[in-house]
Amino acid sequence: MLSAILTLSVTASAPASITTTDVSAYAETVEAIVSEALANGRAYERLEELCRVAPSRLAGSPGNAAALEWARQVMLADGFENVRLEEVTVPHWERGQVAELRFAAPGQLAGDRLTVIALGGSVATPENGVTGEVVEVRSLEEVDELGAQLKGKLVFFNRPMDPTLVSTFQAYGGAVDQRTRGAATAAQHGALAVIVRSMTTRLDDNPHTGATRFVQEGPNIPAAAISTVAADHLSSLLKDGEAVRLNLRMDCRWFESVPSFNVVGELVGSEKPDEIVVVGGHIDAWDVGHGAHDDGAGCCHALEAVRLIKTLGLKPRRTIRAVMFNNEENGLAGGRAYRDTHAEAMPRHVFAVESDAGGFTPRGFTSNASEAAMPTLRAIGELLRGVGIQDVFPGGGGADISPMTGDGVVLAGFRPDSARYFDLHHSPADTFDKVNPRELHQGAAAIAALVYIVADLEEALPRNPVSGE
Amino acid sequence: MLSAILTLSVTASAPASITTTDVSAYAETVEAIVSEALANGRAYERLEELCRVAPSRLAGSPGNAAALEWARQVMLADGFENVRLEEVTVPHWERGQVAELRFAAPGQLAGDRLTVIALGGSVATPENGVTGEVVEVRSLEEVDELGAQLKGKLVFFNRPMDPTLVSTFQAYGGAVDQRTRGAATAAQHGALAVIVRSMTTRLDDNPHTGATRFVQEGPNIPAAAISTVAADHLSSLLKDGEAVRLNLRMDCRWFESVPSFNVVGELVGSEKPDEIVVVGGHIDAWDVGHGAHDDGAGCCHALEAVRLIKTLGLKPRRTIRAVMFNNEENGLAGGRAYRDTHAEAMPRHVFAVESDAGGFTPRGFTSNASEAAMPTLRAIGELLRGVGIQDVFPGGGGADISPMTGDGVVLAGFRPDSARYFDLHHSPADTFDKVNPRELHQGAAAIAALVYIVADLEEALPRNPVSGE
Repeated sequence: MLSAILTLSVTASAPASITTTDVSAYAETVEAIVSEALANGRAYERLEELCRVAPSRLAGSPGNAAALEWARQVMLADGFENVRLEEVTVPHWERGQVAELRFAAPGQLAGDRLTVIALGGSVATPENGVTGEVVEVRSLEEVDELGAQLKGKLVFFNRPMDPTLVSTFQAYGGAVDQRTRGAATAAQHGALAVIVRSMTTRLDDNPHTGATRFVQEGPNIPAAAISTVAADHLSSLLKDGEAVRLNLRMDCRWFESVPSFNVVGELVGSEKPDEIVVVGGHIDAWDVGHGAHDDGAGCCHALEAVRLIKTLGLKPRRTIRAVMFNNEENGLAGGRAYRDTHAEAMPRHVFAVESDAGGFTPRGFTSNASEAAMPTLRAIGELLRGVGIQDVFPGGGGADISPMTGDGVVLAGFRPDSARYFDLHHSPADTFDKVNPRELHQGAAAIAALVYIVADLEEALPRNPVSGE
Repeated sequence: MLSAILTLSVTASAPASITTTDVSAYAETVEAIVSEALANGRAYERLEELCRVAPSRLAGSPGNAAALEWARQVMLADGFENVRLEEVTVPHWERGQVAELRFAAPGQLAGDRLTVIALGGSVATPENGVTGEVVEVRSLEEVDELGAQLKGKLVFFNRPMDPTLVSTFQAYGGAVDQRTRGAATAAQHGALAVIVRSMTTRLDDNPHTGATRFVQEGPNIPAAAISTVAADHLSSLLKDGEAVRLNLRMDCRWFESVPSFNVVGELVGSEKPDEIVVVGGHIDAWDVGHGAHDDGAGCCHALEAVRLIKTLGLKPRRTIRAVMFNNEENGLAGGRAYRDTHAEAMPRHVFAVESDAGGFTPRGFTSNASEAAMPTLRAIGELLRGVGIQDVFPGGGGADISPMTGDGVVLAGFRPDSARYFDLHHSPADTFDKVNPRELHQGAAAIAALVYIVADLEEALPRNPVSGE
């Protein structure tokens, strides 16, 4: 019943000139996709393979190369067409062996450690580390206000993710500037180093890495994340009013860039093979845990979506192209290279979907679709209520596909339940055992259905307006 | 926007004489409840306490008594009013020390074990066990067809839960008759014992217990569950065509019934204290794992719902009564006793909500509400879309509150995401570490909001029609 209501309302609220494409004919196909995914899905065993073959696969590492070859072989084994490697030059940073944060003040705490992890892209400290007094701040603005007072200090960013937001992605978005731009900002005022409260809503001793901006023209200072328990402990010591001095030691470093690839495979369209629907995830992951949810799950979602469509004998009018993007975590070289390699074909890219928010139970999709395309996407979403899709919400599609925004490609992102994601994200806890097969397979089914229907629509999904058109 | 659409549509589809109560005035209160639950929720730490203090708490056991006293103390600590124990006599069954299933045929398998667990309520085997040839069946009907051919045999029920159903509760409902009635049915045909494929969609070596019917007038035969891996293994041996003989040994037994209690506490209504809204879970759990999701989570949901309402200074017109029901798993004595103890007050019971489907991320509620009450419940559900409530679906409320059905009490059940539930249900894997605090607290918030609004409505929620009225 609700389906009918929504279709009516959406049609009613759309401009008079736009007719929502009726997708109700796909209802049985959606059911078949969901049943096949739940009864015979392979995404879970594929993810187990990836996490075993290439648990550590940051761009430029040997594990990254292993993951690319794994993806290529999976595509071949599953009968994808036009399987190929597309060139990407990726940056190469390594964590090294040492990451230590110790109390350096005289007294009982001296030598005690706080749980710490280097932020990705950080420069190293000198071998004996950097030692300085800790100044706690809550924002980049506060850093700029303190200015020269931060000279020679360790700046401690301690603004938590807002726990009251149901969407942890929204909470992450409201806090992550401390991690991405904290070091670059504090460096300008002469700070020695920064330590950042881990980006998680969980109170535990698990530290979370992630990218910090490396400034080509410098200065760059060492940047690390501490666990939330360590952050609360440190903050309570500072509240007591005594000066706290810490010593930070890290030997992470940058290397020369590395020739590498995105992995691409297709299910060629039956009527309009030149029109492309992209479905992807990113094959690289931070070098801690298994990258099981970020983004092994998204890669396996995309691979499984194509496999499900093939297995059911569905022959979409347009080509569905699975892309395993490289280097999402620390450079986005893969996403940029995909767009540039296919610059001429951008006008024939009708849709791109990325899964990069974990392998948890489905909740919805986000999309940048214009009001011309959104009603059709929402109607497809309605067909997926049974696997938990609440709606298609306005929003971005995903980092790897974002370079296609300016070309008018309609982008969408898979949005699973976010309650558990930041417990694990970018941390040693993001391991295969945290993934549930039925949750993963429902996500694959939702993505398969969305991609298949858009690729098969008689009339193409309307493109987004492009400035100048 | 969707909220408005749904309200309109629901009003439009309801009979002309019924006006949907407008609940939009509660939107801000709902937001406050959700924020408080996520920022300062205590359900998770309460659940940790319960799982530590009384991990094993089947009705009639010492752990059950510990859990009752724990619940009473929590209610007192959180300032509940009229905290009390209400008498219930509960059955008392113990698992004993031995549960073994071994191959008994001559040859290489002899002595090898299959992973097994006694079904709750089963009688013991003789000390040396029962030994017989295995006959695999898929249904109770097949047992009746085979009839006398089952005399002296071990009947192996092996119909899996349907993996294609997104709702694992629906899949459970379609398979659980093998566990609850398999032994009683096979006993009538002279079978020696039954072994049942564990009620789970997971393929693993984790066995799942649960109630099997004990027939007062007899005959009763031993009943056990084997893991799904063991079930597949056994089935493949039988497919090879050779006779398979097994020996089952179990020393579980029944004892005299035990005087026990439900635990009750209230937030007394400000205007209509005699009108009651019940919110509850069951305090007993199977004697394996911690009963963390089944139903420690539901108990903590109910306790937290009342605490949240109190903490926010909300004063509902009607009384909200938290009930920790005893003996849901193997008798339902607590649910029946609650209804009988309060028989005279049943006409003043306007609503009862149970949480007994796990502590996972919220999806919806089910309710037996008539079309007079359903639109109001669905409108409340709309206010809870932000915490993942998709809708209020037609359905039951929960076993413990079901005895109030005939009294016209509107019943509702909390329905979280079901993907992971039967991985754990009634098994050693149902432990505290499987619970996520944000998921648990979102559930508590959804239940708190539903209960508070119904208790506070100016005009009472319409009761369900009662036969004879």
